[in-house]
Amino acid sequence: MNPAVMTPAGVDETISLIRECSAALDVERVPLAQAWGRVLREPVLAAEDQPPFDRSSVDGYAVRLDDSSRRFRMVDRIRAGDWKPRVLRAGEAVQIATGGALPADGLQVVMKEGVHVEGNEVVVIERDPERNIRFRGEDARAGSTLVAAGRRLSPGAAALLASAGAVEPAVTRLPRVLHVATGNEIVPPERTPSRGQIRDSNSTLVRAFFGQRGINALQIRAAEEKEAIQSAIRNPRPAPDLLLVSGGASVGEHDFTRGLLEECGYTIRISRTTTRPGKPLIFATRGSALAFGLPGNPLAHFVCLNLYVRAALEGFSGDSQPTTFAEGELAETFEAGANARETLWPARMTIAAGAVKLIPLPWRSSGDLTALATANALVRIPPDAGSTAAGAKLAFLPSGF
Amino acid sequence: MNPAVMTPAGVDETISLIRECSAALDVERVPLAQAWGRVLREPVLAAEDQPPFDRSSVDGYAVRLDDSSRRFRMVDRIRAGDWKPRVLRAGEAVQIATGGALPADGLQVVMKEGVHVEGNEVVVIERDPERNIRFRGEDARAGSTLVAAGRRLSPGAAALLASAGAVEPAVTRLPRVLHVATGNEIVPPERTPSRGQIRDSNSTLVRAFFGQRGINALQIRAAEEKEAIQSAIRNPRPAPDLLLVSGGASVGEHDFTRGLLEECGYTIRISRTTTRPGKPLIFATRGSALAFGLPGNPLAHFVCLNLYVRAALEGFSGDSQPTTFAEGELAETFEAGANARETLWPARMTIAAGAVKLIPLPWRSSGDLTALATANALVRIPPDAGSTAAGAKLAFLPSGF
Repeated sequence: MNPAVMTPAGVDETISLIRECSAALDVERVPLAQAWGRVLREPVLAAEDQPPFDRSSVDGYAVRLDDSSRRFRMVDRIRAGDWKPRVLRAGEAVQIATGGALPADGLQVVMKEGVHVEGNEVVVIERDPERNIRFRGEDARAGSTLVAAGRRLSPGAAALLASAGAVEPAVTRLPRVLHVATGNEIVPPERTPSRGQIRDSNSTLVRAFFGQRGINALQIRAAEEKEAIQSAIRNPRPAPDLLLVSGGASVGEHDFTRGLLEECGYTIRISRTTTRPGKPLIFATRGSALAFGLPGNPLAHFVCLNLYVRAALEGFSGDSQPTTFAEGELAETFEAGANARETLWPARMTIAAGAVKLIPLPWRSSGDLTALATANALVRIPPDAGSTAAGAKLAFLPSGF
Repeated sequence: MNPAVMTPAGVDETISLIRECSAALDVERVPLAQAWGRVLREPVLAAEDQPPFDRSSVDGYAVRLDDSSRRFRMVDRIRAGDWKPRVLRAGEAVQIATGGALPADGLQVVMKEGVHVEGNEVVVIERDPERNIRFRGEDARAGSTLVAAGRRLSPGAAALLASAGAVEPAVTRLPRVLHVATGNEIVPPERTPSRGQIRDSNSTLVRAFFGQRGINALQIRAAEEKEAIQSAIRNPRPAPDLLLVSGGASVGEHDFTRGLLEECGYTIRISRTTTRPGKPLIFATRGSALAFGLPGNPLAHFVCLNLYVRAALEGFSGDSQPTTFAEGELAETFEAGANARETLWPARMTIAAGAVKLIPLPWRSSGDLTALATANALVRIPPDAGSTAAGAKLAFLPSGF
């Protein structure tokens, strides 16, 4: 572990430290039906050749490859699922369905569209050059790796596991997440705020952010009283792997969260960043458990969740291919305004004529939510960028739809 | 409704017909915590101005904008959540926290970093030109549309709904999906196949495909006996909005599924496509309900789910922005082989230097699953493409991670 980084940290430095501190969580075996989206932790090998036997890839008639007859006598029928090995002699054909097991080696399947059948007699009209066979082991050999450890299971990868009989794959368990929304000015969304109050939108954002990753975060809304919050943090057993404290915006929010985390046994690793929004980010560790103090405003929440909390979740998951910044181009000239700090702007990413186009979305203040409704990316705007011309290359991170 | 398209249909024609036939399902109100990922069906308007009052965007001291004093007397403290209107006189300051309601009009907030405090006296060292106020209605005016109908709710959009108190938004209900996997040659993934049999991987693929969309498909594995399958199809009450029949590969699979659907009251609208894989696709309707007959091989399943079933789901959802093909460029020269039909290849899409790069993944046969583990796109390869040079522009459809 690095010594605590107490000076303000930039985006890359912060993400690096978070990755260093977020070790892959334990492995568990889950039923295959629930495994998609999880990260595989043991490679899945082909237990047998795939396909496990020579299969017809068409509906047709199996004949000897070396038999150039035009007329054949149909001696058997093979459906998919049948197992009927037999030696074929010249002039003999076996009707076979797509997926059916070939009765012997050295055969070809003549497509049914290329023959004329009269009773038990098969007359070949057209015999195409293909053998129309999926040969044993063609897709994968027994013992070869089908899906590597560290890979997040897509639906297609899950199907591959099914084909190999890996019905209880070893995957990373989901993290236990506790989210505490604090602040005297927030009320639950279903309540009408009094003057001076606003509705809590961060809890909804956090719930959806984790929900998209299959994680059901435990959420608490707490008044800004240290003891109440501390007991909320200490209560869950087992303790959370990841604790998020959304600051309210009252006086001393930052120091309040910092003190709170320290008293709960966390070590502060980062207490400020050099970027906006999200400058007053807190990142802390307690053994392998992580905590974030997130500045209360919605935009900072959006940015910090997608930049930093995601990095922690990817570390926890053991994903060997974490999300990285990519390059896109500015779709239209953009006036960033003068700001001495790097800014992460919510943006709309689209693809046009093979290029990734980025449109930063207007936001007036770090409390402005309207830009978040359509954002699907974060764009990095360098310090003091001022006016940036259309076509300029900028780094971005996809943030989901 | 169009008359049935019984001649083989191309990709675009098939998708168009599916879209025409898939009307948006009923509207239901769901708790906001469950609304993300759903499509909003009634616009959500700002009930009040957002923010609803002038708020400080920093921790600092509110003073009159027209008061150029250097020394102020602190007359009150306002935390976020407080409501303490008062008239400020020259020489008076109110300590105010980020998010706190300004006590009056015509003020500026001097950042706490720019002052020196001695007891009740506030000495301004640096007074920056910003007013540091988020003005009432700056983000949205009362009555303005926050999220439009037809929009799929991202986490950010859900947060915006929370801020407006839209805690039970009107969204499209999820479709009822029934998936029947047929075929005498398939066994459940947990069973060891006998010779001639293979494990059913399609059911796992289908489950994950719908699971990614928050849909819990009802799944049945049925031997290829018409009566058993028909009763499986007719049993669920209410009837499914979407029925998928994964064909086994036994003789007559296609005609079998076709007859089955017709006897269950469906009208066949498409019974073949001109593309591969997935040539023997069946698309059928029964009133507003839809059915697909999917060819049994895994690759065809992958392609048909992502191309056609997705189009149906997007139609059902009422999404005003359905997925469309985009253009990317071939990362390396690709030998498609001679094929008279358009091919939809599973591919890996990446972003490099602002461009979308596509790498079609090798697959040997339509039964080859290994390419699906890492595919995140489908690439259209025109008929008779042969060798296609690196950099060539090709249409693709993202298929999720």
